[in-house]
Amino acid sequence: MEKKIDKNEKIKIMRHSLAHVLAKAIMSLYPKTKLTIGPAIDDGFYYDIDLEQSILPEDFLAIEKKMKEIINKGEEFKRQVVSREEALKIFKGNEFKEELIRELPEDEEISLYYLGDDFVDLCRGPHVNTTRELQNTAYKIHAVNGAYWRGNEKNKMLQRVYAYAFADKKQLAEYIAMLEEARKRDHNKLGRELELFTTVDYIGQGLPIMLPKGTKVLQILQRFVEDEEEKRGWQLTKTPFMAKSDLYKISGHWDHYKDGMFVIGDENRDKEVLALRPMTCPFQYQCYLNKGRSYKDLPLRYNETSTLFRKEASGEMHGLIRVRQFTLSEGHLMCTPEQLEDEFKGCLELAIYMLKTLGLYDDVSYRFSQWDPSNREKYIGTKEQWDEAQSTMQRILDHLEIPYVVGIGEAAFYGPKLDIQIKNVFGKEDTLITIQVDQMLAEKFGMYYTDKDGQKKVPIIIHRSSVGCYERTLAYLIEKFAGAFPLWLAPEQVRILPITDRANDYANEILDVLKQNGIRATVDNRNEKIGYKIREAVSFKLPYQIIVGDEEIANKTISIRGRGNENKSGIKLSEFVERLQNEIKTKKI
Amino acid sequence: MEKKIDKNEKIKIMRHSLAHVLAKAIMSLYPKTKLTIGPAIDDGFYYDIDLEQSILPEDFLAIEKKMKEIINKGEEFKRQVVSREEALKIFKGNEFKEELIRELPEDEEISLYYLGDDFVDLCRGPHVNTTRELQNTAYKIHAVNGAYWRGNEKNKMLQRVYAYAFADKKQLAEYIAMLEEARKRDHNKLGRELELFTTVDYIGQGLPIMLPKGTKVLQILQRFVEDEEEKRGWQLTKTPFMAKSDLYKISGHWDHYKDGMFVIGDENRDKEVLALRPMTCPFQYQCYLNKGRSYKDLPLRYNETSTLFRKEASGEMHGLIRVRQFTLSEGHLMCTPEQLEDEFKGCLELAIYMLKTLGLYDDVSYRFSQWDPSNREKYIGTKEQWDEAQSTMQRILDHLEIPYVVGIGEAAFYGPKLDIQIKNVFGKEDTLITIQVDQMLAEKFGMYYTDKDGQKKVPIIIHRSSVGCYERTLAYLIEKFAGAFPLWLAPEQVRILPITDRANDYANEILDVLKQNGIRATVDNRNEKIGYKIREAVSFKLPYQIIVGDEEIANKTISIRGRGNENKSGIKLSEFVERLQNEIKTKKI
Repeated sequence: MEKKIDKNEKIKIMRHSLAHVLAKAIMSLYPKTKLTIGPAIDDGFYYDIDLEQSILPEDFLAIEKKMKEIINKGEEFKRQVVSREEALKIFKGNEFKEELIRELPEDEEISLYYLGDDFVDLCRGPHVNTTRELQNTAYKIHAVNGAYWRGNEKNKMLQRVYAYAFADKKQLAEYIAMLEEARKRDHNKLGRELELFTTVDYIGQGLPIMLPKGTKVLQILQRFVEDEEEKRGWQLTKTPFMAKSDLYKISGHWDHYKDGMFVIGDENRDKEVLALRPMTCPFQYQCYLNKGRSYKDLPLRYNETSTLFRKEASGEMHGLIRVRQFTLSEGHLMCTPEQLEDEFKGCLELAIYMLKTLGLYDDVSYRFSQWDPSNREKYIGTKEQWDEAQSTMQRILDHLEIPYVVGIGEAAFYGPKLDIQIKNVFGKEDTLITIQVDQMLAEKFGMYYTDKDGQKKVPIIIHRSSVGCYERTLAYLIEKFAGAFPLWLAPEQVRILPITDRANDYANEILDVLKQNGIRATVDNRNEKIGYKIREAVSFKLPYQIIVGDEEIANKTISIRGRGNENKSGIKLSEFVERLQNEIKTKKI
Repeated sequence: MEKKIDKNEKIKIMRHSLAHVLAKAIMSLYPKTKLTIGPAIDDGFYYDIDLEQSILPEDFLAIEKKMKEIINKGEEFKRQVVSREEALKIFKGNEFKEELIRELPEDEEISLYYLGDDFVDLCRGPHVNTTRELQNTAYKIHAVNGAYWRGNEKNKMLQRVYAYAFADKKQLAEYIAMLEEARKRDHNKLGRELELFTTVDYIGQGLPIMLPKGTKVLQILQRFVEDEEEKRGWQLTKTPFMAKSDLYKISGHWDHYKDGMFVIGDENRDKEVLALRPMTCPFQYQCYLNKGRSYKDLPLRYNETSTLFRKEASGEMHGLIRVRQFTLSEGHLMCTPEQLEDEFKGCLELAIYMLKTLGLYDDVSYRFSQWDPSNREKYIGTKEQWDEAQSTMQRILDHLEIPYVVGIGEAAFYGPKLDIQIKNVFGKEDTLITIQVDQMLAEKFGMYYTDKDGQKKVPIIIHRSSVGCYERTLAYLIEKFAGAFPLWLAPEQVRILPITDRANDYANEILDVLKQNGIRATVDNRNEKIGYKIREAVSFKLPYQIIVGDEEIANKTISIRGRGNENKSGIKLSEFVERLQNEIKTKKI
């Protein structure tokens, strides 16, 4: 059967062939190099090499030039099958290739690929036929990083040479332009430059330290979320961040999620083993269980600004998006089956309200995560329960005209989910918010209510977030606004810049008025030129600057600079305060 | 040299003698009993016995009666010194006493105490001479608990018989009356009854679950503290709850505090060992270290609503006062030596303002915790540094006329402390707030600033809390107000009680008005008698009830009931709202 090569497969073959061209170019420029492996990746390819001399950015051009030479020669890729002994002979002295060859299964064909007559690599292929096919491609070496042989830190550290590679120059240029814009907005870079957060090696990965400016944004967000949820009938709880293993054994996490949890103690040694919580559910259920419940108590809506801990692998952690400790705008809602539709709708409306207020709504998409009926062992509950829960969700989503895609097999083990998805500046998609319908877990914890008919019944639980993880949401806000937060969220809203020392007193009077009116303001009275002070305020993306000098003192006015190149003089302070307060109150984006 | 027996020693001898009387009484009533040990304690004594039959509260009277008989006989306590072999022979069959005898050091005199001719116990003494000396004492058996032999859970569970014992009946009666009042206020009982918090066995000891009402009080407190501190120039941070052991090795906690910390992982097994933080200091220092600092940046005041974790022994945990996870109103202030006095004063004034606002100020006392110069190895730093730090603190305290007691050897290892002490309802003293001067730790973390003269200098750090641990402060507030929180802190401020169903709509209109005005109110429209509803509202110690019936509807008025037996009719809602808002705004106690 002839294998159909699709577009993705074609670009992958092109990239992998370019990796061989790179390897040949490096061998020709650095003959002492030992080659290891060089796969295609999402935006190009890399090759891991063992070479004492460091390859530096100033060497990239010469390597690219050598690659071009090889491509222009139109050299052929030729496949040859050899015995293990022959292969070992050819790569003798290259301990990496020798290791790979020795580990190949007994029955596997060992293939080499020649590129021209003077270069050979151990490779499964496939490749293009000749480098002529690579002539229109565009590639660019952009980085050399350290990488352990086979990713194991006990092994030797190699040099990994990275290159972007696309079908033509236009695609490469577009990709590099996209990256440049994304890098400007990348929260992991910008968030540090704006002094929102930092990380420290000796504290650890995935454990960001929120600096005062970042903490101020989180505090504003947290109060906004807690107040809005209170208005909508949610009752705030504060439950502990750890529990004995006993709790997780009831919830099922001990069997199904232990590897993702931070465990304190050892079951073989300690009488009591504790674990940090990866979710709030079984903790918040205790509030429900605190006394007997009747149908009159339902719906019961509990929310929590909830710190959670997940043992992420070190390679997976990223800025504020993937961390080991985070704070979720968490909630669990217990209701009767009759109340489910309205309550689900309420949760969705709350999430949409939050996203719209924060300016993130236009960037999200919906995924209706369903179970996979062909993979029953992943789930608890009956087909009838799943059909009912999923059809209820579908009815609500259709009624609200939510344009979702279906994700088969993406449900939680206890029920279907609506996931609100968002993409970061680099195009990577993450779940920001989820709303889940759970008809299964309440019974595990003995949660009941007495219904009108006197019968003991099990409530349905909605698990939901309203604004997602605060850290992750902050990351998306940084990227969305390129650090220029809306006024109501800006940690520093106004900076007052006296032009000379003579204006310092006037600046301080203005500061007092702003503070009395609840505006977060500072004075920059350093002995620096006004242009320097303005540039610094601009670099911190401050919403407004007030500039005051002799003229403003004389006229009892202020000059203001806003972010959209706004530049006005002769403004009355009281008018400006009113404008600020209005902008804050309406949470203007 | 004759040993002087002071009053405390005397009551201790009396209590321990009564323990022998109890033991003799129990032996006479339950001849199968095996005696173990029976010491004097702070309010009486106990005796641990091994007996298959459970001693029940209904048995206490008979035992007390038998004790009275023994005392009235005027039996003598007679000491006898015996050899180890004789002792073992006398207590043959009582494995507990045999164990004690075997463990006595070679050179120790083994003494028995006879009480009359028919009762003997292994005992170091001393005792009264005859039970006649016990005739005026007053004692009362009040509890029997399980207790493991020698406190080790691997050993047999014994019965511990507790008794109060005082010099006379009046003292015993006063003590019991005090206990009864204290129990009514005990936060660990009242806090659960008022649905402020709960605990759950399978989550664990010292990990309280804050229910919605308790969380509401904490949320109000937290916002009050964070806002007040912001006004006073503190910058909020949010730092991670765990770090690699590397951090604690720099701070010195790994060497000096590891047993009190929850450690995740094992140094012998894991590449990365993490630990939950027992304090915020080295985390918050990272904010200071985020960039270079000059004298112009100082003082730098960082505060944090900081969750901390301490591995308390299971016997030490108590309600909200001693827990394994708690939230501290934490702060660290970096300043120059010239700024120290003003800044220390500012921290103290803030703490006093908080305590006065919360109504706890009258209950506190101050302890000036100094180093012990005769125990130098406990501390870092020079005598000159300690003298300077302590004299600065003394100057400030004297200037503010703070009536402190000195606690020699109570300082932190890095500097002197001012401890603000408070007693709970049972008379046990705890530290609520502490302010520390630290001239030592900054250097360990490489914290510097460039001074006016261009020199690199080490800042002084003030470690301080403003309101203490939120959980502990809540506990003291519950006990102080016997659960009847001031209006501004009350989780439910007003409950509206319609007398009949006809008043339900009117009640809901009132509810809307109250909510619009930021008052936390509910309607109790259950189909219950008004007297029942009032009693329930009173039992939850609600500040105000609004009662509405036909008369109130007709006159467009409300009737109110306040906690101080206030009972008024014909009130206008708008007037009442104004009164409530004024009471909240002024934080009236």
